[in-house]
Amino acid sequence: MRPLTAVVYGIGAMGALMTRVLVERDITVVGAIARNPGKVGRDLGHVAGLGRELGVVISNDADSVLAQSSPDVAILALNSYLHAHAPHIEVCLRHRANVITLCEEALYPWWTSPALTTKLDALARTNGVSVLGSGHQDALWVGIGAQLLGCAHRVDEVRWSSTWNPEGGGPELLAAMGIGRPPGVGHGTRHDPLEPSFAIAAVDAIAALLGLDQGERTVTSEPVLSTEAVYSASLGRMIAVGQVVGISDVVRRVGRGEPTLSFSMTGRLLADGEHVGESWEVTGSPDLRLSTSYASGEHTQVAAQAANRIPDVVAARPGWLTHADLPPLRYQGQRPPAH
Amino acid sequence: MRPLTAVVYGIGAMGALMTRVLVERDITVVGAIARNPGKVGRDLGHVAGLGRELGVVISNDADSVLAQSSPDVAILALNSYLHAHAPHIEVCLRHRANVITLCEEALYPWWTSPALTTKLDALARTNGVSVLGSGHQDALWVGIGAQLLGCAHRVDEVRWSSTWNPEGGGPELLAAMGIGRPPGVGHGTRHDPLEPSFAIAAVDAIAALLGLDQGERTVTSEPVLSTEAVYSASLGRMIAVGQVVGISDVVRRVGRGEPTLSFSMTGRLLADGEHVGESWEVTGSPDLRLSTSYASGEHTQVAAQAANRIPDVVAARPGWLTHADLPPLRYQGQRPPAH
Repeated sequence: MRPLTAVVYGIGAMGALMTRVLVERDITVVGAIARNPGKVGRDLGHVAGLGRELGVVISNDADSVLAQSSPDVAILALNSYLHAHAPHIEVCLRHRANVITLCEEALYPWWTSPALTTKLDALARTNGVSVLGSGHQDALWVGIGAQLLGCAHRVDEVRWSSTWNPEGGGPELLAAMGIGRPPGVGHGTRHDPLEPSFAIAAVDAIAALLGLDQGERTVTSEPVLSTEAVYSASLGRMIAVGQVVGISDVVRRVGRGEPTLSFSMTGRLLADGEHVGESWEVTGSPDLRLSTSYASGEHTQVAAQAANRIPDVVAARPGWLTHADLPPLRYQGQRPPAH
Repeated sequence: MRPLTAVVYGIGAMGALMTRVLVERDITVVGAIARNPGKVGRDLGHVAGLGRELGVVISNDADSVLAQSSPDVAILALNSYLHAHAPHIEVCLRHRANVITLCEEALYPWWTSPALTTKLDALARTNGVSVLGSGHQDALWVGIGAQLLGCAHRVDEVRWSSTWNPEGGGPELLAAMGIGRPPGVGHGTRHDPLEPSFAIAAVDAIAALLGLDQGERTVTSEPVLSTEAVYSASLGRMIAVGQVVGISDVVRRVGRGEPTLSFSMTGRLLADGEHVGESWEVTGSPDLRLSTSYASGEHTQVAAQAANRIPDVVAARPGWLTHADLPPLRYQGQRPPAH
């Protein structure tokens, strides 16, 4: 079997990590697309920090990269919302490349962006390729929890949460979130208040797997107050007890005769040695709990999930894919060095 | 779509729970098979403790139950090892019933019982039906962990464990496990030392999903000593610090150039309020952790997983099924009462 080929679309920090993950598992990277004039014209291997040339020159001309390289899949590492992504997905589909995007909303965009999703779904079908939103949220916001639900006989309520560390976004992000201030000052908006929270996609993905169709969604943002003093590296100071250390986006979906779903996506400063992760609570018959944990600042699981999905997306039926269309996420990575 | 039909084969505590779970989700139970003369000839609903007749009389004649009822699926709740199960699986397959068995070894029996598995696989194919080992171990020993591995770029080692509470087995089981005695007296064998540990099946199932083929397995049994005094209801006394409170079966699989897999199945007394569950640790890129938790003595997750697998098994290709052949386990249960 010939190695699968990929184009990396978007060469920020995540696109660079994506490149490394693909190269290390013998996916042939045949093209790279970015806008940043400081990156265009340079070799992808150097820009991605691999310390060697890949023989792939970064271009800002998506059409010509895709036309010349005809990849099996384009991996998009751009941003979190579909409307900003749509033109980039579209150009890939027109060139008959399957698409895996790290865009969080793309996990399940049928409710938040119905017109755009319908249009891209049709374009994908016409071109015989498929589109999938993967990345961190694939298994960690949906797949693992769906398996936990598979252990239940009756589900009354599902509550889950995911924690991320806003330090990576620098002082501007912390200021926008109201972090380090007393409650009531500059909090109460999400870190990107102009957008529908992409946490909605996780709730809708689980609702779709459960076959729910009645639910009404509410989205709120709530400040998280510190219960112990926490140091912020970005702000260069301690945050006292009772001040804002983060924001929770809470999406709640309630439907008549349906399990209640509630997902909290919490960006907050972490105490020393504290890990980020997910926590799931299923109330029903039986009650079930699950939690995940990994180091804050570690994003390999994001790129790994997208890379592990490549064979699934290449094999899938054409169109927009969600969890209901896919086999279980499986490890497709490296073998470890021989012991 | 007509409701699916099932025969319950084995009406002990687990078969009774299985019956309740099936009835509550509109699977039509069309037959029941048991050997116990105290149960044969009685209505399944009464024996299963449902408090009402199901119109299904328990019979000890498997051939005639299966011939008369032609179920979509037979659900076997008999014991943990395949050799004891094989004649019962065989009669179901000859009557062209798909089989879901709670037998732990059946999760992945290709290495522990190759001849028997090969024979049953062939019989299933000849009859156009399939066989699956499900129950507790389906998602909780394999499926959820496989999704966690799907978040990894490189896996060096997987260590996981599952805890169960031996109190349910009564004083005989506790005595056989050496529980309540000092270390070195009556411990060091598994609770069923005549059998290969069924924990092997979990390791082999994960190995198969990772595509491993080199591993050598070692199986050891280790006593678990109490670190705090624990009360045993079955023994009617406190177990002092330093005495045996359980046994761990540890299965380790090491192969050249392969991730090391290590699974501990630990039966031990629990402290007040302590829950049972699984714990997963993936070492690699990145490091990942996951844990599950549920009430000890709660077995609905066993019957629920088997019931949730019915549509998968009915739709699957003929033959012996393992995780690599199956879609992700999904909730197929009840809707909650309308709020």
